[in-house]
Amino acid sequence: MQNINTPSVLLNWPTAQANIRRMVDKALRHGLHLRPHFKTIQCHRIARYFRELGVNACTVSAVSMAEYFAADGWDDITVAFPVNLREMETIEALASRISLNLLIVNAESAAFLQKKLKQPVGIFIKIDVGAGRTGLLPEDEPGIENCLKEIGIGDKLGFKGFLTHAGHSYRARSKAEVLKIHEETTATLRALKEKYRRRFPRLIISPGDTPTCSLAETWAGIDEIRPGNFPFYDVMQVQIGSCEMKDIAVALACPVVAKHADRQEVIIYGGGVHLSKDRLLWDGQEIYGLPVLLHGNGNGWEMPEAGCFVKSLSQEHGIIRCTPSFFEKLEIGGLVGILPVHSCMMVDIAKSYLTTEGQVWEKL
Amino acid sequence: MQNINTPSVLLNWPTAQANIRRMVDKALRHGLHLRPHFKTIQCHRIARYFRELGVNACTVSAVSMAEYFAADGWDDITVAFPVNLREMETIEALASRISLNLLIVNAESAAFLQKKLKQPVGIFIKIDVGAGRTGLLPEDEPGIENCLKEIGIGDKLGFKGFLTHAGHSYRARSKAEVLKIHEETTATLRALKEKYRRRFPRLIISPGDTPTCSLAETWAGIDEIRPGNFPFYDVMQVQIGSCEMKDIAVALACPVVAKHADRQEVIIYGGGVHLSKDRLLWDGQEIYGLPVLLHGNGNGWEMPEAGCFVKSLSQEHGIIRCTPSFFEKLEIGGLVGILPVHSCMMVDIAKSYLTTEGQVWEKL
Repeated sequence: MQNINTPSVLLNWPTAQANIRRMVDKALRHGLHLRPHFKTIQCHRIARYFRELGVNACTVSAVSMAEYFAADGWDDITVAFPVNLREMETIEALASRISLNLLIVNAESAAFLQKKLKQPVGIFIKIDVGAGRTGLLPEDEPGIENCLKEIGIGDKLGFKGFLTHAGHSYRARSKAEVLKIHEETTATLRALKEKYRRRFPRLIISPGDTPTCSLAETWAGIDEIRPGNFPFYDVMQVQIGSCEMKDIAVALACPVVAKHADRQEVIIYGGGVHLSKDRLLWDGQEIYGLPVLLHGNGNGWEMPEAGCFVKSLSQEHGIIRCTPSFFEKLEIGGLVGILPVHSCMMVDIAKSYLTTEGQVWEKL
Repeated sequence: MQNINTPSVLLNWPTAQANIRRMVDKALRHGLHLRPHFKTIQCHRIARYFRELGVNACTVSAVSMAEYFAADGWDDITVAFPVNLREMETIEALASRISLNLLIVNAESAAFLQKKLKQPVGIFIKIDVGAGRTGLLPEDEPGIENCLKEIGIGDKLGFKGFLTHAGHSYRARSKAEVLKIHEETTATLRALKEKYRRRFPRLIISPGDTPTCSLAETWAGIDEIRPGNFPFYDVMQVQIGSCEMKDIAVALACPVVAKHADRQEVIIYGGGVHLSKDRLLWDGQEIYGLPVLLHGNGNGWEMPEAGCFVKSLSQEHGIIRCTPSFFEKLEIGGLVGILPVHSCMMVDIAKSYLTTEGQVWEKL
């Protein structure tokens, strides 16, 4: 702790390990292939822990991220992002070394790959199950058929199955809402599998967002899951109901630079360039994180105190609104922890983790 | 353009040069010392252009940024952020090499510096002129006197004057509102100068936000200005009225990965990890940027088309809502430019600029 001088991401490694083990156990229990999404962790050291637990395949959201993990021995990677036709050289190079799966959301991209690729790759068709971001609608039979036709023309593209990301589960605010989305999503996927399995007996269906993967216990017919956020969780996941506050495994340690007693606000070195500007409504208040007291021995942090929150962020500054008791506990020149609204975004910005054991772990 | 494969910050260098020259000329015209805030540009190459125009002092928002610019010969730097008492070693090292000014917002920090610092530094007292972030209130005479007392105890801290950042000008939505804030802010500073100049004959007053510095033409009594955003501007500054759309000098070039004709939406590789999640209300719509057609020859971009906007961002994806004509002009595998809501945040994330002349300029 004494060595922290600027905003730094603290990793509570025992908590993250417990989160990871819980998901690995759940996948085993339900006979699901776990292909965790490493866009959250972006770190070889953390990924190796998955490998120790028997996980040998992963998901990433960018080709550069696939390169990073391939360099540490991951040889079965799905890039769960609509294939970027401008990165064919890197894709080609990767596909020559590892088992690479790409995502398509339209026949044009499949046709392009068919024409350009020299190495074999696996292809998932992305289905939009309600998130409204991208993917083919499940009822768009002509669209799906066009994709399958292009995939089938040559021998470089191997159709793997249907992939979804129920991003709308992030808008849920109760376990019941998440489970309803899960039932709808998995029913849609099962229907697609049923429809296409005669033509493609080995096709798999792969959903994967942290809320449904954390909460659901009904997985009949599902082959693979790809949650990403769960090793760390965050305040948004607490609000959704995916986890409890004690499960959050990352916090931003921030120097306290000013105290304003008249408005019970504390100013920290820690802004939008550290936490990201992700926000949510919490107790009727728009917040950018929850402040916590850090343990002096580097062994984690207290649970947040009701009524304390990060009220606003500028580029480098954060403003914490405090209760009188919390205000008293912070001092200028000291540190305070911030539990992030969205851990993926906060971690993406950081260059390394500082673990509760005092180690620095580099990341992408 | 052909070499852009992943989201990349394009810099329209002639536009940025014109923006910079305009501010330098204005400072000269009004006899103001221009100490530009380099938190926006974070780039040696761009900073050197300021030096060519006779600017020899700068502002930064972090000690690490001061180190970066000191390494390129900047020897008069103000760190316009409440001094972080945990960075004394770096501050000490910097202060031994350059003329360094620090900011204090309370007497405790001044006392700490007094006790710890071995090198002389300049000290500004930050005054909160209405932004409500940090600083002493102008009417807080006891608070200001306590600071001055601590500063005056030894010979290491030299009182330089009063500094403000009228951050509330970012909430203005018309030139008249900005000018009203400017009049209030500068009147407050002039009154402080008047009050303290007998005791501190060389004290200076230093405001500095891009809206007021871009729009105001009355600067009587003001010594120094520290705007930062103006070399690039952004959609927020257009909305405030600080500049016109044609003055925006940076855009994020993003690969198009999918088109959804049914909802006239285009999906780009370019998300919150590239643009930041800064947003604003534009024509009644929450937006994360404005899409523009890029010139194929790398020579800038078209002006945005009404009715087109970045509707949402996730970690790596962006969704652009299009008019039918704009939708037709984008193609999968092509590029589209995004004018940022907040250029400082977008640029902070990037590792380099790609200039309209085809050069790559590294940044902090």
